Amino acid sequence: MAKESFPDRSYHNEAEDLMPATPEPDVKLEPWQRETRIVGSRQPRIDAYERVSGTACFTYDVLLPEMLHAAILRSPHPHAVVKSVDTSAAERMPGVRAVITDKTPGADVPWYTRMGPPQSRLFDPHCRFEGEEVAAVAAETVHQAWDAVKAIEVEYELLPYVTDPEEALQPGAPHVHEGGNEEAEPIHMRRGDIERGFAEADVVLEEAFSVGTHIHVPMESFGSVARWDGGKLQIWDSTQGVYAVMAVVARSLGLAYNNVRVISRYVGGGFGAKLRVGKYTVIAALLARMTARPVKLFLTREETFTSVGNRPGAKMRIKAGSKSDGTLTALRLENYSTQGAYGGNRYRVGAQVMDLYACPNVWVDERWSYTNTCQARAMRAPGFPQCSFALEQMMDMLAERLGIDPVQLRLRNVPEVSQLEENQPYTSTGLAACVEEGAREFRWRESRDTAKRGSESHIKRGVGMAACNWWAGDGGPPSSATVEMFVDGSVTIRTGASDIGTGTKTVAAMVVAEEIGIPQDRINIIHADTGNAPYHYSSGGSMTLPGAVPAIRQAAFDVKRQLLEMAAEDLQLPKEDLAIEEYSVVSRSDDEKSVAFEQLMRSRELRNVIGKGFRGRNPEGKIVRPFGAQFAEVQVNTLTGEVRILRLLGAHDSGKVINRTTYDSQVIGGMTQGVGFGMTEHRHIDALTGKVCNGNLHDYKIPT
Amino acid sequence: MAKESFPDRSYHNEAEDLMPATPEPDVKLEPWQRETRIVGSRQPRIDAYERVSGTACFTYDVLLPEMLHAAILRSPHPHAVVKSVDTSAAERMPGVRAVITDKTPGADVPWYTRMGPPQSRLFDPHCRFEGEEVAAVAAETVHQAWDAVKAIEVEYELLPYVTDPEEALQPGAPHVHEGGNEEAEPIHMRRGDIERGFAEADVVLEEAFSVGTHIHVPMESFGSVARWDGGKLQIWDSTQGVYAVMAVVARSLGLAYNNVRVISRYVGGGFGAKLRVGKYTVIAALLARMTARPVKLFLTREETFTSVGNRPGAKMRIKAGSKSDGTLTALRLENYSTQGAYGGNRYRVGAQVMDLYACPNVWVDERWSYTNTCQARAMRAPGFPQCSFALEQMMDMLAERLGIDPVQLRLRNVPEVSQLEENQPYTSTGLAACVEEGAREFRWRESRDTAKRGSESHIKRGVGMAACNWWAGDGGPPSSATVEMFVDGSVTIRTGASDIGTGTKTVAAMVVAEEIGIPQDRINIIHADTGNAPYHYSSGGSMTLPGAVPAIRQAAFDVKRQLLEMAAEDLQLPKEDLAIEEYSVVSRSDDEKSVAFEQLMRSRELRNVIGKGFRGRNPEGKIVRPFGAQFAEVQVNTLTGEVRILRLLGAHDSGKVINRTTYDSQVIGGMTQGVGFGMTEHRHIDALTGKVCNGNLHDYKIPT
Repeated sequence: MAKESFPDRSYHNEAEDLMPATPEPDVKLEPWQRETRIVGSRQPRIDAYERVSGTACFTYDVLLPEMLHAAILRSPHPHAVVKSVDTSAAERMPGVRAVITDKTPGADVPWYTRMGPPQSRLFDPHCRFEGEEVAAVAAETVHQAWDAVKAIEVEYELLPYVTDPEEALQPGAPHVHEGGNEEAEPIHMRRGDIERGFAEADVVLEEAFSVGTHIHVPMESFGSVARWDGGKLQIWDSTQGVYAVMAVVARSLGLAYNNVRVISRYVGGGFGAKLRVGKYTVIAALLARMTARPVKLFLTREETFTSVGNRPGAKMRIKAGSKSDGTLTALRLENYSTQGAYGGNRYRVGAQVMDLYACPNVWVDERWSYTNTCQARAMRAPGFPQCSFALEQMMDMLAERLGIDPVQLRLRNVPEVSQLEENQPYTSTGLAACVEEGAREFRWRESRDTAKRGSESHIKRGVGMAACNWWAGDGGPPSSATVEMFVDGSVTIRTGASDIGTGTKTVAAMVVAEEIGIPQDRINIIHADTGNAPYHYSSGGSMTLPGAVPAIRQAAFDVKRQLLEMAAEDLQLPKEDLAIEEYSVVSRSDDEKSVAFEQLMRSRELRNVIGKGFRGRNPEGKIVRPFGAQFAEVQVNTLTGEVRILRLLGAHDSGKVINRTTYDSQVIGGMTQGVGFGMTEHRHIDALTGKVCNGNLHDYKIPT
Repeated sequence: MAKESFPDRSYHNEAEDLMPATPEPDVKLEPWQRETRIVGSRQPRIDAYERVSGTACFTYDVLLPEMLHAAILRSPHPHAVVKSVDTSAAERMPGVRAVITDKTPGADVPWYTRMGPPQSRLFDPHCRFEGEEVAAVAAETVHQAWDAVKAIEVEYELLPYVTDPEEALQPGAPHVHEGGNEEAEPIHMRRGDIERGFAEADVVLEEAFSVGTHIHVPMESFGSVARWDGGKLQIWDSTQGVYAVMAVVARSLGLAYNNVRVISRYVGGGFGAKLRVGKYTVIAALLARMTARPVKLFLTREETFTSVGNRPGAKMRIKAGSKSDGTLTALRLENYSTQGAYGGNRYRVGAQVMDLYACPNVWVDERWSYTNTCQARAMRAPGFPQCSFALEQMMDMLAERLGIDPVQLRLRNVPEVSQLEENQPYTSTGLAACVEEGAREFRWRESRDTAKRGSESHIKRGVGMAACNWWAGDGGPPSSATVEMFVDGSVTIRTGASDIGTGTKTVAAMVVAEEIGIPQDRINIIHADTGNAPYHYSSGGSMTLPGAVPAIRQAAFDVKRQLLEMAAEDLQLPKEDLAIEEYSVVSRSDDEKSVAFEQLMRSRELRNVIGKGFRGRNPEGKIVRPFGAQFAEVQVNTLTGEVRILRLLGAHDSGKVINRTTYDSQVIGGMTQGVGFGMTEHRHIDALTGKVCNGNLHDYKIPT
């Protein structure tokens, strides 16, 4: 389904230059074109056994002796002030070991989700959305904890609220924060002369679009297990970024970074929601300290609908101008979205999405408001699905008005440079190839004709497509890794990167196996553990693989370099003549000459060889972007409204694919979530109460 | 009590040369003489809180969910063949989850304790000593496991046995192994002409000495917890060497090294007995695999007396010749000791001990036999206490016969070179200083005179002394370490070395704090974890500190070097002008110029700085040896036999002392064990049954 016919952009880095060259073929190849044995093939996950057998230990599975269970009391109101909290009944209930509120010493701390001043407290008496944390309980069982939560008596003073992003910016709207509902100045982007662009157009269209709010719904809920060991804190967390959790927890509790160890061995999905640190993590740590017991705090499915974030809806207005041949002359976007109740999730999205097509005159205004709703969080390319939806709808409308095939209209406007980044060229512009090759594979023209002809009854067929770009996806520093080889040739990779289900571990093992020349089953990976694996940034934005793997690869090269240098010395041969085979360094020119890894190490009084790798910066003067195009054939029953998707095809320019299998899964997963976005998912807030009214898997419909 | 007035021999290594020099004082100092802020001071242990509060997690404390408990059935006979084992009753008992014997698939493996062919099987049907493993049980509770062990029915064929090391070598003695009771050729050492030496002597004395067998008796018993995670095995072990356990377990179970993670966070003493890998570790791993549950297997105190090793007794005959001025002319030693039932513990001891004194003519024969007793293991300088006892007794006898003060006799024979090692000089010869300074502090002459005068009633007083050397104690490669600094300046040290109670962790933190210039409380150490800390050899032989610390120090230098190089670039200053202060690099010459660690890292897209260190070899052409002298005043009631120790003084040449507090503890602990050696400890084997008859803390008397 997913296509790959584009050159590598992320696989090469300077570490390559340290290595003896692969024998030169007749034609000079770029590094990414050289023949690989493992990279690029289909490989099962290295943790497939653990996953299938059920031994894989997700954070939800962490079970410690003496472990307590915690639950959080949350504000049932979208906007209220806590006047008083009475925990006395809760404290007397069976199994209850601790109850904390904003009045509890140690829990009366500000809440840092990012650099800069905090916007709230851990248990903020000013509750700005339904689901904000008011108190928490640790008890011997989950049910005892929940019973006690329900026994806490809270007196609230209700405040007026606002939940619509556009309304929040009107005069007189209730203020979510002192100082108003706009976090910062609106984001403006101006290129060329928008009025002249419309004047030069043969066709001008304008339309308003809106999309709803979506919930991430990872299989594994959100939560942490916290255990103190003297003054050191160990946290198991279902997170996309262990180092982010380490930093926030250390800051909240006044600990040094090296005293906070955060581990995330398996994560049951995140989709961006687990990029930010949850208050539940710090609450678990506080309860564990108070009780001198390990504490597990996992959110219920219902809590994840109200309290951990969402992809915010947007209200957009697009005005577009085009020549009659389809050449875009002007694009104008107004975009209203919301941060929810707290900031830090404002992205410069509209201008990025508008960069998908070449257009000399662009005008973008984006305003992000505070509302009395749960905070926005990144979700699979934050902001892009919303704006892309609006832009691509507009492209289709233009195509229809101009009488140009939608595929052709898009191909007419493919840019060769990033117009936002000083017209720097892309490392590769896969957009045209995605659209063209996707259309060919989909049989776009024939399908479209057939659909038109076959739509005479109440069952209508339609064929459509949309293109996309994504701002990140190239990775970059800071990412570090080590590769350690034992005397028996087995290898352990260490990287702080999370594997949030995307197959990072497998890909890392493949690359190390490829580069050092040892079998994959001799490779382990220790990852997402701030106590045992060096820094990598949080896993998100499709940046994990291109960010972490070059660092891992460099560390593998470093091991290989050390082995080859030792062997060159022992065998008295130039490094260029050496290769690795069967845990030995062998001469390419003389079959008799070889030396085993173990011999190299033991003769030097070594019992391991450690390589270090750091991800370098991307090449200067070029822009790395992934592109894609997707094609769908759907059938609509115009009497019942039933929609059936008959075919979906994605064509993606994703750079070098390391593992065909996990890559396909990623694309298929993304397209499946796109079906939910387009057809069934929508978080509903009741206008009369400001409360979420479909916060559960029965009423909130995800593709199954 | 312990003296330190000797130059550093182990603290310097080549990493020093990488660093900008400390400003030169007027007098040129050796590296070990430069002023230190922390090194050499008294410091509490960095894990003092954990130890005192009870949160320190020894292997015995490891408690995993669903964990089973195991117990071992052992041969009650010193020599027997297992004819049949009936486990059917045991298997039906409550809580029993697995019973294994030599017939169990997977458990029918050879037992590797060392390189070379195995000498037995995991459950060997030929039981060569009382306590050899016959079967094992895993059950829900320890008591259920022991009940089931007692329900296993075994039919033994009894064989004749031998337990005395000298008898074992007589013709007709029962064979412990096919091929006889001598593992290898006797160890001979010949220097000069022993007969001429005796001919040149004015006085020749000859005497036989014997010492008994001692048990290590660490506070924490011996045991392991094993847990499988897919095909990966995690072991918590009370061991002196996690990497040794990793290698033996991997070999026994056919696993790659990186699939066996061995952790030993706190160890309640080892004294050499935990240098070797226990069968219990592999048995726990097998039971865990069979039951798919974690398994804990800890030996009872009684088992530790019969089954995990001992310091073997010895029968020695020494003949010594001396000129009338006390100059030694000849030393002849015959030494019989035993390996117990299995080999790998044969040391070249006698010749090493005889090297304590200068003597041109030396003759040594050492024979190590197999006996039907538990295997010998290293115990605080393997073999040396036995031979040193005999040699020092002989020196006292010579002194008396020659009419020379025992202190003076020893001082007359202090060697400047190692006569065993091609007359290479010692890096320092602390022996004379130990004897002289110890005698002065002890008021040797006055005490001796007083004791003689005061010994007229049945209460007699005596004053004595003895000197010693030790063959190891200098450390060396292979030892590796990493030091990782986080952006907040906190640091994690990683070393495979165990801290068996000696304070290795504290010393490592002191050295890193000293060298990087950060407070000790910002330093963590992760150690003795094959999954998280690079190779260091097993901790024993007083080699841990001098082996590991230079590697750790080099890794710290590597971090410092990287910080200084970054700062030199940013501040545009030469490295020599830079120093570290308050998590910043500052100019020595310009108070205005400084840059914070965090700034150095973040501006380079780094979130940590990792330094690597390897222990280099010791300097060529010199011999490193620790020396010591101990002095005692004792009182003996000649009617009751009661002995009271009135005073003890130790004077030790131990090299550079890093932490005065933990150093003192080490010396005091060693001297205390010496009291047990000299006065109360002796493992008794009943001549009629070949069975240990004081294998418990009631009957085996250790100093308390």
